[in-house]
Amino acid sequence: MSTIVVKVGGGEGIDPLALVPELAGLVRAGERVVLVHGGSHETNTLARALGHPPRTIVSPSGNQSRRTDRRTLEMFMMAYCGRINKSVVEALRREGVDAVGLSGIDAGIWVGSRKGAIRAVEDGRTVIIRDDLSGRVESVNAGFLEMLLDNGQVPVLTPPAVTPEGVAINVDADRAAAATAGALGADELLLLSNVSGLLSDPGDPGSLIGSIDADSMSVAHDAASGRMKNKVLGAEEALRGGVARVVIGSANGGGAIEAARAGAGTVFSAGVRV
Amino acid sequence: MSTIVVKVGGGEGIDPLALVPELAGLVRAGERVVLVHGGSHETNTLARALGHPPRTIVSPSGNQSRRTDRRTLEMFMMAYCGRINKSVVEALRREGVDAVGLSGIDAGIWVGSRKGAIRAVEDGRTVIIRDDLSGRVESVNAGFLEMLLDNGQVPVLTPPAVTPEGVAINVDADRAAAATAGALGADELLLLSNVSGLLSDPGDPGSLIGSIDADSMSVAHDAASGRMKNKVLGAEEALRGGVARVVIGSANGGGAIEAARAGAGTVFSAGVRV
Repeated sequence: MSTIVVKVGGGEGIDPLALVPELAGLVRAGERVVLVHGGSHETNTLARALGHPPRTIVSPSGNQSRRTDRRTLEMFMMAYCGRINKSVVEALRREGVDAVGLSGIDAGIWVGSRKGAIRAVEDGRTVIIRDDLSGRVESVNAGFLEMLLDNGQVPVLTPPAVTPEGVAINVDADRAAAATAGALGADELLLLSNVSGLLSDPGDPGSLIGSIDADSMSVAHDAASGRMKNKVLGAEEALRGGVARVVIGSANGGGAIEAARAGAGTVFSAGVRV
Repeated sequence: MSTIVVKVGGGEGIDPLALVPELAGLVRAGERVVLVHGGSHETNTLARALGHPPRTIVSPSGNQSRRTDRRTLEMFMMAYCGRINKSVVEALRREGVDAVGLSGIDAGIWVGSRKGAIRAVEDGRTVIIRDDLSGRVESVNAGFLEMLLDNGQVPVLTPPAVTPEGVAINVDADRAAAATAGALGADELLLLSNVSGLLSDPGDPGSLIGSIDADSMSVAHDAASGRMKNKVLGAEEALRGGVARVVIGSANGGGAIEAARAGAGTVFSAGVRV
């Protein structure tokens, strides 16, 4: 019996429900499964429909993140914690799997700190944003998740997280999944989305990096751009947390989980010196 | 130490967050508290903004209910399970209370059957609606809720419920709260909303019925109209389920919970012959 954390992205074209039959198969086989999901595309669509279109913060080094004011966070709750989370739990129940859908706020599953001041580039000038509701997971309530797993239930987790003071914050779901896998001592973390893995040349689908070990972790960081940066950081953090194996792979097509477990994508192996 | 189920409605002008300080006080005093909330007004607002305005089913006897197609159900999930549920859990955490926000789908907390065929009056003709996603709670996963309560957590529950086959269904939150109170053997159920209680004359705020016992249950049913009908049914079902005391009262103003517990509103007492 092993513990597997599966993260499925929320980008355009990814359907988390497509993974449900495979997840159900893992549960029936006796594995301890935790699902983490995103919801960025659906949040963007909702935000546009509600007249509060998404905005992006660009850091001086070129990193991009969602500008999260309170109204954005509430639409984020609607999409991530409402429509997507409950539809996934519903679909799991349809497969006979007992699931519990939760945000990182619930039971303090993901507690972390809010970014105090964010440097951003706007119209060529660097400005400081102080009221953004985003941050990073610093602790995971593993005891609560273990209680659910021991009770035969699949935790279905999604941002936001929450500060120790009780303020909901937008966090990166890949890195939250990595923190969760580390806290649970998971055997495996699968980071599945609409990419086939880490490419050495983002413009060349044939340039997939098949495996990363201690000597190539810097290669992974150098190759990662855009949203891939957080996946590589997450992989590194999970390995450092004691997870034996992390795979960055595709969420699409039937058998995506089996394929990733079999090594399709980019495999980060334990033993890497980090 | 007693078990108290508090239901706060989702009608216009009701703010569930206003109850949070009092709920936190109960938890600190050692009570076992379950909160159930609605979200009808926010769902209506969202549905209009998203171009799928709410529709009402009127039964031949004049009862009104929400027409729940799949798209409506998903917007319902956004408002009830997303924005409202997570904001309440967040606010409880801010008061130092460990809460867990869940729908009736999660862990099969509320399982029930979907209405097979609904008779509705449209343009003066009676039609049969067969695809509505609404139903009624028939069983409560009390064991799961007891596990959370034993773990020191406040379950924050909201519709939808789910069928045994895994289909999410819209259910009345008052009656779901009543079923929950019965299943938990709760000492008290408070049904709080934007009314002061059951009025013998809906047009006369001075006609509040202070208490209901065995001999006056039929009076309560006769007096109830509109949304009050489900509250009275819920009160009756809770008493039948073994709950000692049910109060239909106001959610508004500071101290609403204490006032209801002290008897402000309409008090249904155990011992009533039902």
